[in-house]
Amino acid sequence: MNFSSDNVSPICPEILAAIASQSDSSALPYGQDDETAKLDTAFSQLFETDCVVVPVATGTAANLIGLSNLVSPYGGVVCHHEAHINQTESTGVAFFGGGAKLLTMDGPSAKIEADRLDEFLSAQSNRGIHAVDPECVAITQATEFGAVYTVDEIHAIGRVCKTHDMRLFMDGARFANAVASLGCHPADITWKAGVDVLTFGATKNGALAVDAIVLFDKTLRKKTEKARKRGGHLFSKHRYLAVQLLAYLENDLWLKNARHANMAARLLGQSLTSLGARMVHIPQGNELFVRMDDDLAALLRAAGIIFRPWPAVGPGAYRFVTAWNSPLEAITTLPGDLNLA
Amino acid sequence: MNFSSDNVSPICPEILAAIASQSDSSALPYGQDDETAKLDTAFSQLFETDCVVVPVATGTAANLIGLSNLVSPYGGVVCHHEAHINQTESTGVAFFGGGAKLLTMDGPSAKIEADRLDEFLSAQSNRGIHAVDPECVAITQATEFGAVYTVDEIHAIGRVCKTHDMRLFMDGARFANAVASLGCHPADITWKAGVDVLTFGATKNGALAVDAIVLFDKTLRKKTEKARKRGGHLFSKHRYLAVQLLAYLENDLWLKNARHANMAARLLGQSLTSLGARMVHIPQGNELFVRMDDDLAALLRAAGIIFRPWPAVGPGAYRFVTAWNSPLEAITTLPGDLNLA
Amino acid sequence: MNFSSDNVSPICPEILAAIASQSDSSALPYGQDDETAKLDTAFSQLFETDCVVVPVATGTAANLIGLSNLVSPYGGVVCHHEAHINQTESTGVAFFGGGAKLLTMDGPSAKIEADRLDEFLSAQSNRGIHAVDPECVAITQATEFGAVYTVDEIHAIGRVCKTHDMRLFMDGARFANAVASLGCHPADITWKAGVDVLTFGATKNGALAVDAIVLFDKTLRKKTEKARKRGGHLFSKHRYLAVQLLAYLENDLWLKNARHANMAARLLGQSLTSLGARMVHIPQGNELFVRMDDDLAALLRAAGIIFRPWPAVGPGAYRFVTAWNSPLEAITTLPGDLNLA
Amino acid sequence: MNFSSDNVSPICPEILAAIASQSDSSALPYGQDDETAKLDTAFSQLFETDCVVVPVATGTAANLIGLSNLVSPYGGVVCHHEAHINQTESTGVAFFGGGAKLLTMDGPSAKIEADRLDEFLSAQSNRGIHAVDPECVAITQATEFGAVYTVDEIHAIGRVCKTHDMRLFMDGARFANAVASLGCHPADITWKAGVDVLTFGATKNGALAVDAIVLFDKTLRKKTEKARKRGGHLFSKHRYLAVQLLAYLENDLWLKNARHANMAARLLGQSLTSLGARMVHIPQGNELFVRMDDDLAALLRAAGIIFRPWPAVGPGAYRFVTAWNSPLEAITTLPGDLNLA
Repeated sequence: MNFSSDNVSPICPEILAAIASQSDSSALPYGQDDETAKLDTAFSQLFETDCVVVPVATGTAANLIGLSNLVSPYGGVVCHHEAHINQTESTGVAFFGGGAKLLTMDGPSAKIEADRLDEFLSAQSNRGIHAVDPECVAITQATEFGAVYTVDEIHAIGRVCKTHDMRLFMDGARFANAVASLGCHPADITWKAGVDVLTFGATKNGALAVDAIVLFDKTLRKKTEKARKRGGHLFSKHRYLAVQLLAYLENDLWLKNARHANMAARLLGQSLTSLGARMVHIPQGNELFVRMDDDLAALLRAAGIIFRPWPAVGPGAYRFVTAWNSPLEAITTLPGDLNLA
Repeated sequence: MNFSSDNVSPICPEILAAIASQSDSSALPYGQDDETAKLDTAFSQLFETDCVVVPVATGTAANLIGLSNLVSPYGGVVCHHEAHINQTESTGVAFFGGGAKLLTMDGPSAKIEADRLDEFLSAQSNRGIHAVDPECVAITQATEFGAVYTVDEIHAIGRVCKTHDMRLFMDGARFANAVASLGCHPADITWKAGVDVLTFGATKNGALAVDAIVLFDKTLRKKTEKARKRGGHLFSKHRYLAVQLLAYLENDLWLKNARHANMAARLLGQSLTSLGARMVHIPQGNELFVRMDDDLAALLRAAGIIFRPWPAVGPGAYRFVTAWNSPLEAITTLPGDLNLA
Repeated sequence: MNFSSDNVSPICPEILAAIASQSDSSALPYGQDDETAKLDTAFSQLFETDCVVVPVATGTAANLIGLSNLVSPYGGVVCHHEAHINQTESTGVAFFGGGAKLLTMDGPSAKIEADRLDEFLSAQSNRGIHAVDPECVAITQATEFGAVYTVDEIHAIGRVCKTHDMRLFMDGARFANAVASLGCHPADITWKAGVDVLTFGATKNGALAVDAIVLFDKTLRKKTEKARKRGGHLFSKHRYLAVQLLAYLENDLWLKNARHANMAARLLGQSLTSLGARMVHIPQGNELFVRMDDDLAALLRAAGIIFRPWPAVGPGAYRFVTAWNSPLEAITTLPGDLNLA
Repeated sequence: MNFSSDNVSPICPEILAAIASQSDSSALPYGQDDETAKLDTAFSQLFETDCVVVPVATGTAANLIGLSNLVSPYGGVVCHHEAHINQTESTGVAFFGGGAKLLTMDGPSAKIEADRLDEFLSAQSNRGIHAVDPECVAITQATEFGAVYTVDEIHAIGRVCKTHDMRLFMDGARFANAVASLGCHPADITWKAGVDVLTFGATKNGALAVDAIVLFDKTLRKKTEKARKRGGHLFSKHRYLAVQLLAYLENDLWLKNARHANMAARLLGQSLTSLGARMVHIPQGNELFVRMDDDLAALLRAAGIIFRPWPAVGPGAYRFVTAWNSPLEAITTLPGDLNLA
């Protein structure tokens, strides 16, 4: 059982079938094909609002291109210190943003809190020509520490952004896990709360390689498409991005996969707790952060279970990530199996 | 029959099978998997020299990242005016190259000629701090106009580059078609001629989405990998890039597909000629450029044949591109079928 | 007599006096001082329209920052192949423009012709996501080859720009020489013809180091000021830029200096012609391009006259540039003095 | 008395005389003149080591260009959170550094402490391809809070940098004030401690507009000169930068001016303390940070004394900056004069 990340999982059958379905036909390149033509409608129906979809092959590309729409080369992007864009995307924000700077703040479970955001923006804004003015706020749903913003929390952040005339970006690499956890409508935590651009992750949740940049501000389409092309992210065989996304939405596969992963995380949390581990955060999506003693860690490893230390949440902490294909039964029987072994 | 480009073709069966083969297993992300580990060896065997392979999903990304290794932000890249990097990759060279500038020259069939390159470099170099000094030469094999550099021509270019202390880059989006056309060893037209970095195209020739940046200068590995990450081009499920490339090399699939496409182009050229079209260039790879009168163009279109006007090679010119799956028989019988219709 | 460029000349007395006048007082930094406060009004009066002035210390900075307002990172700037921004400003346009690309055309005396511009823009625009769309046209007044656009020529260019929805930029490093040559009002060849941004040169024409970015589109102020700061071009002791410009405008010093330089060029042209040189272009501003045999060139050099070969206008060509302080009498008597020597 | 910054002061007489001395002669442009030719020797004598000098007109340009030599587009620059490059230079570091990122730490009086730097570098380095590796450490001497690193402190930082294979940059906008305060040799706190690049400020200390990028690593000359040109920072009338610097070094004017400013700060500190203000830091250079009640602040303001609140050092704090021309007697008699008023 490999819990080192959800991206260790393979492509899921529905998406493989969608790819295979395109094996006998020709199609116009660069997004002029029939499958791509369905995307805007499919996502607009999902979100119950007109929106524009620009797919790319990686979550980092989706974040960097999506975000670059919302900040000038002289401006700042406010994010949590632990945000993927700050910790794990190299100097990509400045690269795609023409120099734009990350302005980081803290908060529990890698969440930004609306009140502190309000203070931060008040302190950082309008400091004159020498300083970097915030222009955009970026949040991650679910967060890098496995937490999920509530509907109210996101609306509160949206209101603060509106007050300070900030754009609002959401890194949704694990958006499906967040929606599955909240049981809300996807609109409730996005455009209805003021989100301008969402990256809607599929790669970690069963796709081969596709994340969608969802533009609720439809005026951003042209700029986004130009940035995608210039960045080398426009696929020639674009239909292969499109069919992955269409299959991902069809019959709520995205939610089905995410619910499975979330369930696996809950069950794994119970199993690990019963073995003596302590939760660092209450697991809300498909990520678990636990503390455990060296003996337990060694025992798990000896049983072939793969997971990673995660010092960012504190000394002695480990991260376990479940996926669409995590084996629920083996997770449930883990304590017994280990004791028997 | 769709000849508008080779990228309208679907994924080929061998590569689909390779992707499908990864459906039941977990693998470490970001290139730490077992399949990726085989790439350097596979390409080193193919090229008969130690080289480093960094795969990305698009040919534009391969070109832009590969090239950015060979030029400083203050330097120039010499290329043909018709080069893909000049005509068809937006402002990508400056983006990935930190401002690096394209310095264009002319030449027949979109080829750079060694003698004129020598003159160009002599005239453009060492013009002082205000000017942009050339630092790198970029050629395309096969060229954007369907021509193929001979082994001697590339060696001559390599010698000029060495004389002027220029790095040499090769855009090999259709490298397979060039090798199939020349019947040479891939080493003969790359590192043996002084090529520092090659982009080895697979997407147009049967893959879903993968082109390999091949570094014959192995010291460029770290910088290339950093540029790939920063550009959002590092796949999490990296094995899916790797298995495409491995399948592409296995049993010389890359050559088999290219030979098919080249053969289709030759046959199509015969068929079109017999119908009254005139070749603009002798077809050497899988691209045909022809002139024909409006009646013939209309006749072909009425028969469902798709192709594109290509004014860059002259007024009244059209481009036909064949692919790994072009129907040889239907191409051969085209004149008769049209006359019958 | 040093005719290698106008920038070999020293600071003129009026501007030195203006600098010296600030030696005993304190002043707020970064443009908040009283002298800077006068700039917008002074230039608005000169141009007879409301405009915004952002001064910087070099002509290259003025061009690069001014131009960066008018083009996106994905767009092209149309200019003459010989334009200073293309030949003599390194990779600066891409640097300040976030990757923006120069699209060059030809034309006599380094001028862009309106008809050919119209054709060029028609051919280059709307070529799809892969290509670089022109977004801005940049002209130089007077041109790099010493020619001066007529009022009608600039209005014709302005109309073409309007038709194609292009912004219009004017590099006015030698704007004063052009106005002095035309005898027109400065408004006639700028905003009345559709110029959005002008760089108004002073450094070559008597100042120590200051060129003004003049924004006829006043909405560009904030972006220009941010670009200036980020580029390290915002002076702390900003009043020293301001007083140079104010002295330069006062009593039409800018025109007085330019008329002197233009007169010197005319006289020098007569003297050189009488010695056997041939004009390449009719001198309109303060630059002369001539052809002469080696004996005459040697004779001039032996007499201590400094000038430069200028192969860009053709083999055997030389450039002579006069300035605000060129010695009119010595220029006039040159033929006789050489013959006596 | 204007203590809002040292850049409110005018040009000092010696430097004005140096500028005026160039009023009657011609000189080759762009640094090919005789005055510029003296710079490397003059600074090499001052620092008692061979070094290269590249002058620019602003301190921000000096920092951004100097620093851009020492970090790649994928790398990080470690600096104090209060560093000028982090707080007051817009997004310039990323702009000139091609995306390079600031990695900030804390420390007393805006100083980086060697021990904590060692820990920081250990924690931040080698975190893999996704993270930004530190490549350079930047310190400010004197710091933004008016403190001066001791010779030992800088050597300790230099040793940590060497251990971690980091380059070392020093922002010396107020380097003269630091040397005057320490009474050391300028070599002691620069190259002898491992500093690769220093910006040697003159603008705040009597010049019109010039700061020198001093390259102790002489291999950086070409890259620095290219970056200067591309950034629009290469003066055509370059001798006017050179003569300012030469006059600044002659007869130790730089130290004379700095000693005056430092003395003024000490005296001002005594005067303010006697009036009831409390020092936040012990003044070591020419900056004072004090706390005082509203009555005293109002009294000072009513007497025409200009100074600024400085919340970065804490609530209720004010900054006073002295300069080469601060009136020592009026500062000394301030308490008495105020009481009389």
